[in-house]
Amino acid sequence: MDTHSTHLLVELWEANREKLDSVTGVREILVAAAEKARVTVLHSAFHRFSPVGVSGVVVIAESHITIHTWPEAGYAAADIFTCGDKAMPQLAAEHMAQGLESRRMEVTRVTRGVSRSQRAKPSLKPPHRASSIQA
Amino acid sequence: MDTHSTHLLVELWEANREKLDSVTGVREILVAAAEKARVTVLHSAFHRFSPVGVSGVVVIAESHITIHTWPEAGYAAADIFTCGDKAMPQLAAEHMAQGLESRRMEVTRVTRGVSRSQRAKPSLKPPHRASSIQA
Repeated sequence: MDTHSTHLLVELWEANREKLDSVTGVREILVAAAEKARVTVLHSAFHRFSPVGVSGVVVIAESHITIHTWPEAGYAAADIFTCGDKAMPQLAAEHMAQGLESRRMEVTRVTRGVSRSQRAKPSLKPPHRASSIQA
Repeated sequence: MDTHSTHLLVELWEANREKLDSVTGVREILVAAAEKARVTVLHSAFHRFSPVGVSGVVVIAESHITIHTWPEAGYAAADIFTCGDKAMPQLAAEHMAQGLESRRMEVTRVTRGVSRSQRAKPSLKPPHRASSIQA
């Protein structure tokens, strides 16, 4: 079984502070981001902090999407972790940046499920794990 | 506001396949891992896939803990994302490895909330964001 996954670590800077502080808005953006990425939402949980800030996690058939916002700093940290070759995680990142009106996005792409000793070797194209999943 | 956070990307290899496939067991391990890390659990969601595999996300006051398991491969990908200076994410990683009987753990530590242009500069000790949080 191939355990390859793609994990995008997404830093969203210079975002709209009001949008970063709306739990309803952040939830809508994450669910829409999942649609853009062509992944299947299974569960989600969101929390608004006092005085400010939102955390959200979305379990998807292909792994997860999370976000944590710091409205005072105009910043959010998002993660998009997907297995399979049908997901389009970059599209989810772009949707989040657009929805939160971030003017500067930094994305780090990490390959998960590959042992350090294996990383130097050419990687095989991962199979579509999600196809064998029943929600 | 300081946005520094610590994100551990944890690869758990050669783990116990039966334990990796138990949603109840994986949930117990993640909640206990949160306790070890001295973080506060707010919400959690777990999903068991057919035919095998478990995904779990835990929203904590300090950010999140997630896991995805590939029992056939004896592998799990976990993430421990914590802000504040009181959390002990490494202890959570060690607890997960122990609970899942992983014989080989690879941990990558990533600092989040720091712009790429700032990463070369010495970082300040982050404040304890969680202290201002009310669940």
